[in-house]
Amino acid sequence: MALIVHKYGGTSMGSTERIKNVAKRVAKWHDAGYQIVVVPSAMSGETNRLIGLAKELMPQPNPRELDMLASTGEQVSVALLAMALQAIGKEAVSYAGWQVAIKTDSAFTKARIQSIDDVKVKKDLDAGRIVIITGFQGVDDDGNIATLGRGGSDTSAVAVAVALQAQECLIYTDVDGVYTTDPRVVSEARRLNTVTFEEMLEMASLGSKVLQIRSVEFAGNYKMPTRVLSSLTDPLMSLEEEAKSGTLISFEEDTNMEQAAITGIAFNRDEAKITVLGVPDRPGIAYQILGPIAAANVEVDMIIQNQSVDGKTDFTFTVPRSEYAKAVDVLNDSVKAHIGAASIQGDTKVSKVSVVGVGMRSHVGIASQMFRTLSEEGINIQMISTSEIKISVLIDEKYMELAVRALHKTFDLEKNN
Amino acid sequence: MALIVHKYGGTSMGSTERIKNVAKRVAKWHDAGYQIVVVPSAMSGETNRLIGLAKELMPQPNPRELDMLASTGEQVSVALLAMALQAIGKEAVSYAGWQVAIKTDSAFTKARIQSIDDVKVKKDLDAGRIVIITGFQGVDDDGNIATLGRGGSDTSAVAVAVALQAQECLIYTDVDGVYTTDPRVVSEARRLNTVTFEEMLEMASLGSKVLQIRSVEFAGNYKMPTRVLSSLTDPLMSLEEEAKSGTLISFEEDTNMEQAAITGIAFNRDEAKITVLGVPDRPGIAYQILGPIAAANVEVDMIIQNQSVDGKTDFTFTVPRSEYAKAVDVLNDSVKAHIGAASIQGDTKVSKVSVVGVGMRSHVGIASQMFRTLSEEGINIQMISTSEIKISVLIDEKYMELAVRALHKTFDLEKNN
Repeated sequence: MALIVHKYGGTSMGSTERIKNVAKRVAKWHDAGYQIVVVPSAMSGETNRLIGLAKELMPQPNPRELDMLASTGEQVSVALLAMALQAIGKEAVSYAGWQVAIKTDSAFTKARIQSIDDVKVKKDLDAGRIVIITGFQGVDDDGNIATLGRGGSDTSAVAVAVALQAQECLIYTDVDGVYTTDPRVVSEARRLNTVTFEEMLEMASLGSKVLQIRSVEFAGNYKMPTRVLSSLTDPLMSLEEEAKSGTLISFEEDTNMEQAAITGIAFNRDEAKITVLGVPDRPGIAYQILGPIAAANVEVDMIIQNQSVDGKTDFTFTVPRSEYAKAVDVLNDSVKAHIGAASIQGDTKVSKVSVVGVGMRSHVGIASQMFRTLSEEGINIQMISTSEIKISVLIDEKYMELAVRALHKTFDLEKNN
Repeated sequence: MALIVHKYGGTSMGSTERIKNVAKRVAKWHDAGYQIVVVPSAMSGETNRLIGLAKELMPQPNPRELDMLASTGEQVSVALLAMALQAIGKEAVSYAGWQVAIKTDSAFTKARIQSIDDVKVKKDLDAGRIVIITGFQGVDDDGNIATLGRGGSDTSAVAVAVALQAQECLIYTDVDGVYTTDPRVVSEARRLNTVTFEEMLEMASLGSKVLQIRSVEFAGNYKMPTRVLSSLTDPLMSLEEEAKSGTLISFEEDTNMEQAAITGIAFNRDEAKITVLGVPDRPGIAYQILGPIAAANVEVDMIIQNQSVDGKTDFTFTVPRSEYAKAVDVLNDSVKAHIGAASIQGDTKVSKVSVVGVGMRSHVGIASQMFRTLSEEGINIQMISTSEIKISVLIDEKYMELAVRALHKTFDLEKNN
């Protein structure tokens, strides 16, 4: 009997009425003959409520105790969902991560899953029970509860699917799939039927927050077919239709030669650019600039070092906008004089736009088509960065929507591929 | 170093401000050189909130899942209290029952503690840490969470104190001790400095709901000195004063000959009386009447069978008032015709009043003094039941307060004993 893992987000679990709908949907799959494991998130708002209480006691709560606290949200969800299933005549049993056990390391609030014991769960499934497992959490070697960090339930669901060798992992969420770009920016944005793991990884890391990036890595590493689909549809819609809805993250690149070059346009408004001017061009200079930035826990995204002129060069990088002031302080306090730089300049009104697609590998001229389109719209490119399946540009934030719309059109993304 | 167990009720844990006060009080004891284990309840209202959610899904929620759900309330409390202690510079660590482990049987929602492993806790205490353990819950042999039922945190605290061989178990609550009777009924009611375990047991079972009865049994079985005291005092009051406040449940009867005969007057408004008239007086008749009542989960309190006349007798018993209708239905449906009883009569306007005291053993005439007092007030006694240290009477509910006041006065309970 094929095993399917369902994951439901906090919105889907947000009230007992919604939990009843989740139960109906799960029961429908079980009635159709599937073995079902469900990984629900905490009821929406619950995790924030708990963390709010903690912060009333300590501005920086102890991570172990924070995990002890926050993990209760998912425990409430699994028990309620088990009851909702029992209320409609299904045998169901809930487990906290430690009961399964889902073993993690001891990096509280950002733990990583190390192993999942499948004995208990398989026994229940073989007995015809629906098994419900807390997302977001596991237990370390010393028996402490450790959580996986925000959005960690996606990762739990994929990891459980991998451990149980599920046929597919279905991530039910409040969007109905992955789009060519944000429909709020481009009304012609189109839902993708499939996206490759690598594309999804680039889309997720570029600000398309449908799935937690770690869950995509996990799905990719273990080649677990994972589908993002809507939890807002009628729970009793036909199973055949539901099973094909949403977006499947696949692991086989389409070999169709007619495949579109570009899959989607991602963007990130939240960028800031910092340039260190007049830097002596000598070995180790990048480390001397970025070492202190990393030590201050500021994440650096794009990095560019210009060709040097007269032994001096300019060094430019981007950081999240909220970290800009901290990064500039670090440079002024610990870097500028030390390396003998001329000055520090910055710009917080920049955004990043990226075209993503595995088709890029077999299509030439994607970059020039992108740059021509931006040029025709009069948009100046401030930085460029590329990977095998992605080209990103940094531009003035006021042109961001314009750029996304123009690129969506030039790569024909509104048409079915 | 002496070990003390503190237990705090839901009201004391009701907000982060109150949790900070609990932390100050605990820290004061720790500063004075005691090893401290704290067993807090769920924040007030939380358990009801969770059970309310469950009942929206199922009128009779599955007990295992109900325990999975309800146990989260205490887990939230222990984590928050650990943070509150850390915030004032104390090393503290929280554990859920399964982490300790507190092992229970599998009687979900009314489990009994079987054993407590002290290894982890002792290690923490020896390292100078304050240990905080969830009340109300443990884990069964199969790794399922099981709760001890309402008020179970009192039992957890006493059980933890026994397992760790604590010097004393302090139950902080929203009353400042055990009184000779309810001060809302008799304004002269006096707080008792000590009460024996057996008296406390009778008081608790008779409706003086200061402590869960099971915790008193536990304290009694293991002779754990247990003190009920107020959590509403200034948390920084002198420790010497606090250590002597409230009421100590002791295990040595005072051998002072001048000891008062009676310790307190307990009462229970919530009684209903049922009489089965014209019952054939033959062996097994009590079981034929009460068996179906027990099978319907109705708890029976006082039972009286009259001397038979002409082979017929009357059989009278009391039940909680809320169960009266159910009990009468059971008798009419399954008992009356079957045993050939003449009729069923009942009265829901009755109350029980009891005088309690170990001194009764060495004082004669307590019963007659009680009956004379009631007679002088014109109060008719409907039923009488006695134990070694208690005499209970059932009377018309409208005389209950009058009876309690008159008995409180006649046994000189307003005076220090």
